[in-house]
Amino acid sequence: MPTNAPVHAITVRVYYEDTDAGGVVYYANYLRFFERARTELLRASGISQHALLAQSRLGFVVRGLTIDYLASARLDDELTVTAAVDRLGGASAVFVQRALRGDHPLATARVRVACVDLECGRPAPIPAAVAQALSRFIAVQETSPQ
Amino acid sequence: MPTNAPVHAITVRVYYEDTDAGGVVYYANYLRFFERARTELLRASGISQHALLAQSRLGFVVRGLTIDYLASARLDDELTVTAAVDRLGGASAVFVQRALRGDHPLATARVRVACVDLECGRPAPIPAAVAQALSRFIAVQETSPQ
Amino acid sequence: MPTNAPVHAITVRVYYEDTDAGGVVYYANYLRFFERARTELLRASGISQHALLAQSRLGFVVRGLTIDYLASARLDDELTVTAAVDRLGGASAVFVQRALRGDHPLATARVRVACVDLECGRPAPIPAAVAQALSRFIAVQETSPQ
Amino acid sequence: MPTNAPVHAITVRVYYEDTDAGGVVYYANYLRFFERARTELLRASGISQHALLAQSRLGFVVRGLTIDYLASARLDDELTVTAAVDRLGGASAVFVQRALRGDHPLATARVRVACVDLECGRPAPIPAAVAQALSRFIAVQETSPQ
Repeated sequence: MPTNAPVHAITVRVYYEDTDAGGVVYYANYLRFFERARTELLRASGISQHALLAQSRLGFVVRGLTIDYLASARLDDELTVTAAVDRLGGASAVFVQRALRGDHPLATARVRVACVDLECGRPAPIPAAVAQALSRFIAVQETSPQ
Repeated sequence: MPTNAPVHAITVRVYYEDTDAGGVVYYANYLRFFERARTELLRASGISQHALLAQSRLGFVVRGLTIDYLASARLDDELTVTAAVDRLGGASAVFVQRALRGDHPLATARVRVACVDLECGRPAPIPAAVAQALSRFIAVQETSPQ
Repeated sequence: MPTNAPVHAITVRVYYEDTDAGGVVYYANYLRFFERARTELLRASGISQHALLAQSRLGFVVRGLTIDYLASARLDDELTVTAAVDRLGGASAVFVQRALRGDHPLATARVRVACVDLECGRPAPIPAAVAQALSRFIAVQETSPQ
Repeated sequence: MPTNAPVHAITVRVYYEDTDAGGVVYYANYLRFFERARTELLRASGISQHALLAQSRLGFVVRGLTIDYLASARLDDELTVTAAVDRLGGASAVFVQRALRGDHPLATARVRVACVDLECGRPAPIPAAVAQALSRFIAVQETSPQ
């Protein structure tokens, strides 16, 4: 995760619906948690995905992601799920996200999303207000090379 | 379930996604299985819900249901899930449905659905082709009064 | 719903994960919302389902439910989901539950649960601490007959 | 995907439960489809995950994955979902997986799984019978260097 990134964090409680017969959170469900965090990052800046969908038929579509599962979450766990913006393009963005229990990271991901006109399925420019909201969560890059 | 009902049956395999930390199929997931059976009942007569949605903005909306859970299903179980039509109205229908493992019933339900214009949310007449498909699965009623 | 029932209420936000291609919350997902409310009703009294499961292999299993869907919820809606106890037995309980958007009821349900030893699948007495927690949410019955 | 890989393929139908308000399959649900294909790859060799879990408390836990979403699936689509083994270690394996509509790839993924003793959460050797089942689906490597 980028250094000094302003991060949006939400709290997610683990319910029976999230777990599987192995006794832990089912692996696909972290993607649900991560989307909740991305949605709330936008909402924190007054952006409603429902309004985007209803008014402009615009939606963010995930183009790809990489996720590492480090430890398991269990029933009743209270998780912190974060989202920050790593890159912001004209019609796409890359989020870095984490799920933690306390300070203990359970899953980390990098999620590429594209803004899409859901009517025709084509990429569409991210609306200015949305881009501005996302830009508030871009990592402050170090000047020294990594 | 009605006597002599022509029933549409599908096979559903239980995967990790369907189970919860209690080791059994999560109670809400039987509603997913039941919808699959209703959908396949229609498809068996050549009716596509996607076509209904895309061409006419019509969809079947569940108005209410009663379900009894009799026994639990577990990971890897192969279930038979059935659907039959108990009542067919001009803009609504009632299905009776069951999930079984072998001959052993696990859940039985009665599901009221309405045909709805999803654009405006209002009830809409069931298209003739759909009504005809559903009517094939109506229980043959006994002549004696119930 | 019973008169004068002390009700436990939670807030549920509707995310993309909860919706379907009809543009509304998928019907099975209200059962997920209702379970969250029942879980939080218990947690409000300090009862952890994870502890019940881990320490005593006890879990609440839904035996049956009736649900009526009155109106649709959509992406980004903020719902109030309530739980109250209608009946409390030695090894079972009946909850009455509602999902509302503002004052507008979207779904109402009556959910019968049983306390079960998940090791053997048999009914088990509700532990005293849990029964006491549930009893706080039992409707105060009117003395006059209904 | 490796050349000449023996691939296990299953058919997955898209139901309402799989879609979201954007009208397409929700991105997390491809992970459900991919797990079904991995499970059926094992079952094709007579391996039951339920038996592994019940008898040995063993389960396959996903440690990480990379997925690219190339095109959207919609309600009623019939998808082919494949699984093949790219690498097989003593306690882990890497699968390559695809979801296709006809010949059109919709999503491709690389999924790292570990065999875990779910009682204690520690890695465990893949049982010999399971390793043999997996080895049938390992890509036949080219003799020329890559």
